[in-house]
Amino acid sequence: MNLQPLKGFRDFYPEQMSFRNWLFKQMSQTAKLFGYQQYEGPTLEPVDLYVAKSDEELVDKQTFILKDKNDKSLAMRPELTPTLARMVANKQNGLVFPLRWFAIGPRWRYEQPQKGRFREFWQWDVDLIGEESLQADAEVIALGCNLLKKIGLSPKEVTVKINNRRFLQEKLTEIKISPDKVKSIFKVIDRKDKLEAKDWEKYLQEVVGDEKQEKEIIALLENKKFGDFPELVELFNLLKELGVEEYVEFDPLIVRGLDYYTGTVFEARDKDGEFRTIFGGGRYDNLLSLFGGQKITGVGFAAGDAILEEVLKKFDKLPKLKNNNEVLVTIFSSEFLEKSLKTAELLRNNKINTAIYPNKDAKLEKQLKYADKKDLRFVVIVGPDEVKNETIIIKDLSTGSQRTISLKEIDNFFLS
Amino acid sequence: MNLQPLKGFRDFYPEQMSFRNWLFKQMSQTAKLFGYQQYEGPTLEPVDLYVAKSDEELVDKQTFILKDKNDKSLAMRPELTPTLARMVANKQNGLVFPLRWFAIGPRWRYEQPQKGRFREFWQWDVDLIGEESLQADAEVIALGCNLLKKIGLSPKEVTVKINNRRFLQEKLTEIKISPDKVKSIFKVIDRKDKLEAKDWEKYLQEVVGDEKQEKEIIALLENKKFGDFPELVELFNLLKELGVEEYVEFDPLIVRGLDYYTGTVFEARDKDGEFRTIFGGGRYDNLLSLFGGQKITGVGFAAGDAILEEVLKKFDKLPKLKNNNEVLVTIFSSEFLEKSLKTAELLRNNKINTAIYPNKDAKLEKQLKYADKKDLRFVVIVGPDEVKNETIIIKDLSTGSQRTISLKEIDNFFLS
Repeated sequence: MNLQPLKGFRDFYPEQMSFRNWLFKQMSQTAKLFGYQQYEGPTLEPVDLYVAKSDEELVDKQTFILKDKNDKSLAMRPELTPTLARMVANKQNGLVFPLRWFAIGPRWRYEQPQKGRFREFWQWDVDLIGEESLQADAEVIALGCNLLKKIGLSPKEVTVKINNRRFLQEKLTEIKISPDKVKSIFKVIDRKDKLEAKDWEKYLQEVVGDEKQEKEIIALLENKKFGDFPELVELFNLLKELGVEEYVEFDPLIVRGLDYYTGTVFEARDKDGEFRTIFGGGRYDNLLSLFGGQKITGVGFAAGDAILEEVLKKFDKLPKLKNNNEVLVTIFSSEFLEKSLKTAELLRNNKINTAIYPNKDAKLEKQLKYADKKDLRFVVIVGPDEVKNETIIIKDLSTGSQRTISLKEIDNFFLS
Repeated sequence: MNLQPLKGFRDFYPEQMSFRNWLFKQMSQTAKLFGYQQYEGPTLEPVDLYVAKSDEELVDKQTFILKDKNDKSLAMRPELTPTLARMVANKQNGLVFPLRWFAIGPRWRYEQPQKGRFREFWQWDVDLIGEESLQADAEVIALGCNLLKKIGLSPKEVTVKINNRRFLQEKLTEIKISPDKVKSIFKVIDRKDKLEAKDWEKYLQEVVGDEKQEKEIIALLENKKFGDFPELVELFNLLKELGVEEYVEFDPLIVRGLDYYTGTVFEARDKDGEFRTIFGGGRYDNLLSLFGGQKITGVGFAAGDAILEEVLKKFDKLPKLKNNNEVLVTIFSSEFLEKSLKTAELLRNNKINTAIYPNKDAKLEKQLKYADKKDLRFVVIVGPDEVKNETIIIKDLSTGSQRTISLKEIDNFFLS
C-alpha cells in the first residue's frame, strides 16, 4: 500500500502543524485587531454556486467535483467568496452592516502542484461588507500589510501593488477603446506577467487589432503615476494615515483575474516577483445581487498558506517554534507510579503541560533518553527521598543542571 | 438560487463560530496539558485506505466518493484513524515513540442528518501510539474525562463506560462459544442499544442458535462486575490514581463497532442515554501492521463537535461567549478622520482589538447606534476638545457612563 499522501496533498506532522498553527494565529490576531469576526462555511457547495460568479477556468478545470445520491453535482470549494455571498444574502435582514468578517479554512484546486501551490491549501479570507467608502478599501489593504509586518516581512521584501479598474477604464476610454473590449483587455493585462513578452504582445494584438492603440496601452502600463485620479489620490492618502505607506505602491498592471471586481484591486507580491500573489483582492460592488438580494458592496482579499510559507523561507523569516514544550514526569520505579501520577496531576492543575512516561516498568535511563530525543527541556524525577521530603527533582536538559524543589513551589518554578 | 447550505452541512456565522472556536480550544488545551502534539492529514485519501480497515458500512454507504482524472476513487475522509496509521507507517523510523498525537478537523459521512448528527462534522482524535501498557489506556481515558470536566459536564451528567474485548472473549469462551462466532457476537452486543428489545433478541438467536448460551450471554451483559479480570482491575486502579474515578464505570455492553479494537474499549455517554457516543475509542494492537510495517500498538478515541454541543445544551452548560469584544473608534466629523485613524492605530499598538467606523461622513449618532446594535461595550470619541488636549472620550455602552482620559493612559484603562 502506498504510504504517501495523494499528489498535491500534505501530511502535517507535529512539526509542520506547529508552523501552520502559528501562521493561522497571526492571521486571526491581525483580523481581530481590526475588529473582524471569524466565520466559516461548508466545504461542499452545489457547483451552480460557482458557475454564477467564479472564473470559468476555475470551475471547469480546477474544481474537485462529486455527485450526490440524486446525481446533483457538488464542488469541493475552490474559493470562499461565493459561500460568503450566499451566507450574507441568506441572513441579509438579520445582520448589522457593515460586516467585518474573516475565515481560515481549506480550499481545493485541481492544478499541477508546484512550489507554493498544492491541490489542498488553506486560505485566509478577509472582507468588509456593506460599506462603499475608500476608507473601507484602505482598511482592508492596511490589515493585509499588518499581517506582513507581524510575520516579519519588511517593505524591502514584499510590496502591495494597487490599481483601480475604473482608472484603467477611464484611460482606455481616453485612447478610444470601445467599451465592449474593456473586459477582454483586462484579461490581457492580467496575463502580462504570466506569458513570455512575445506571446503577450501577440495576445494584445489579437484583442486590440490597432497598432496605435496597442502602443498607447503599453505606454499606459509603463506609467507608474496615477495623476489626479480622485479615488487613487484618496486611497493612497488614507494608506499613509493608516501607517502602511512603505508597503504600498501604484501599479497599472494589477487588474485581477476575476470578473466581479469593480474598483480598487490589489496584490501583495515578493519584490523579486519570484512567487505568485501572496494575497490579492479588491472591491466588488455587485457580487451579492447575484443572489437576488438588494445591492450590497464589499471589499476583501484572500491569502494562501503555501505561498506565505515559501516567502518566509526565501527571506529566512520562518519562526523558530518549539514543538515539544511540555514537562516529562518520569517514573522512578514501578512502586512510585502513583507518586508520579499525582505529581503530573499537580503540575497540570498548575497549567503546566505535562506528559508522564507511559510505562512504569521502563528504566529511568530509557525515560531520560526519550525526553532527550523528544527535545524536551524539563524532566521531573520523583524518587524515595523526594517522596519523603515532599519535593521533586527538576532536571533542565538544556543545561544538564538539576534542582530539588518543594511541591509548594512548583508554579513559581515553571513561571520563572 | 437556494440560499441554504447543503443538507447536513452548516453555515457558521460569527456567533456559531465563536462556540466552535471555544470548543476546539478546550480540546486543544486539554490534549496539550497531557503532552499531546497536534497533527493533521489530507481530507482526501484513496478509497482503498478505508477498505483496508474501516467498517464496511462506513465505506460503502456513508462515504462521499469522487473520481480523480485517472478514474481513481477518492474518499472525503469519514474518519482519521486510517490516515494516522498511514502517516505513522510512512515515517516509522524517524519518529520517537511513544507518540502522543491529537487532531481537530472535518470529517464527512453521508448519513441521514438528525439532532447532533451532520454530514459534515468536526472530530477531535486523540491517540497514544507505541506503548501497550494499561497506563496508556488509562491516560487516554483520563484525558477524555478532563475535557468533560473542563467544559463543565459533571459525573452526574455524563459517564465513560469501559469494557475490555479480551474480558468479553474470555467470558464467551467460558460458556463454550466457538472462537469463530466471537466477532459476530461482538456485532450483536454493539447493536443492543440501537435496536428494539425484541428485534435484538431475534438477532441474538440468529447468531448464537442455542437457547442456553443466549441466556448466558444476556446474564453476562447484565452483570456489572468484572471480578478479578487483571486488565480491568489494573485499569480502574489507574483511573482512580488519575483522579477521574467518578467519571468512569464498567459496562459489559460496550464493545465498539470497528473490528480493529483488541483490548480496552470505552464510550462516553450522557447518563440518560439520550445521545449517541460523546467520545468513543479503545486499544488497537494490529492496525499499523496493515501497512506492512512492524507491529505498533496504539490506543485512542474520537469525539464529535455536534454531540458535544447538544449535550452542553441539554445540561444548560453552553458557555456565554462575547462575540464582539472590540472597541469602536467613531469619527467625529470628516475633518477628524485622521485623528480617529491615529487613535485606532495607537489602540492596536496597545493590543486592543479596535474597529473604526468605516465611513467618515456618517453621523455620530448613526455610529453609536451601530455600536449598540453590534453589542459592543466601548466606544471612543475624538472631537475638537480631545484633539486639543490629547485625550479621548471612552463611552461604556453597558453603563452609559463616559470618561475622558489622556492618550498616555490608554493601555491602563482597557486592562483594568
